[in-house]
Amino acid sequence: MDTAHTITQFAKMLQNLDRWLEKATAQAEQKKFPPDVLAQARLAPDQYELVRQVQSACDAAKYAAAYLSGQNAPSHPDTEKTLAELRARIRTCVQYLESVKASAYAGAMERRVAPPWLQGKWFAAGDYLTQVAVPNFYFHVATAYAILRHNGVELGKMDYIGAIPARD
Amino acid sequence: MDTAHTITQFAKMLQNLDRWLEKATAQAEQKKFPPDVLAQARLAPDQYELVRQVQSACDAAKYAAAYLSGQNAPSHPDTEKTLAELRARIRTCVQYLESVKASAYAGAMERRVAPPWLQGKWFAAGDYLTQVAVPNFYFHVATAYAILRHNGVELGKMDYIGAIPARD
Repeated sequence: MDTAHTITQFAKMLQNLDRWLEKATAQAEQKKFPPDVLAQARLAPDQYELVRQVQSACDAAKYAAAYLSGQNAPSHPDTEKTLAELRARIRTCVQYLESVKASAYAGAMERRVAPPWLQGKWFAAGDYLTQVAVPNFYFHVATAYAILRHNGVELGKMDYIGAIPARD
Repeated sequence: MDTAHTITQFAKMLQNLDRWLEKATAQAEQKKFPPDVLAQARLAPDQYELVRQVQSACDAAKYAAAYLSGQNAPSHPDTEKTLAELRARIRTCVQYLESVKASAYAGAMERRVAPPWLQGKWFAAGDYLTQVAVPNFYFHVATAYAILRHNGVELGKMDYIGAIPARD
């Protein structure tokens, strides 16, 4: 489970998330309510709504790719209000993830990762990836899924996992 | 992010989950309702309740450790009904994870992983870890967290992430 594979997996999960939003939109139209009602849905009053869960999932993936390849992350302002805009945000993020070549992660595990919010402290890259980036990414993806399921969107576990890499 | 570190991280997250259940129990007692009401809570009528989310998180971690170290997984029957029993299940699982030495994962990425539900097909170990075990584990952990938050348990993102491995 190396760095490049983990970033590729983030892109796969974001594309899964895109399909949940596509299904949510279609089901809302079928039930004749405005799909963007879901954009503001949340599980607890003091937890992020769907919009910020999707933005946060994108950012967790984007910053992992940037920090571990030694790049500056591109700016993706949090302006989305609709499911269509969230799907565009996901596409922009996935395009960025795919633009970082696997070779850019050579030596990634030797890096120090010093996000601004650590205020001068730093993570060893392996600690950052395993204990911060991955759990944080999946937190926001799974919470987005939970918000949709709680609001009646018909999704199943295989929508969450996506394509199963089984071999014969 | 190697196999042994990923399993260590699963143990860390399960210990975080144990603390959420401890906090949930204390807060329920403070609010004078039976804590085990939460054991049956769920976010959608056709989604697993808290009990099965915790059991599934434990199993995702247990099977990853067993498959990738070439062991048979110990049997942990799904008999829990209370938060106290779920906390004991977590402890049993963490003890198993800690019993597998890091050296047992040498060569793990060369293994074929063939869970019974694949019906004869198999995963390359890296595909299994990155695309199946990790997303599935975090799904159940994050959904357990979401069920608790949705039911008013006071938890924050740092309870989810746990100890931050920052260095000076």
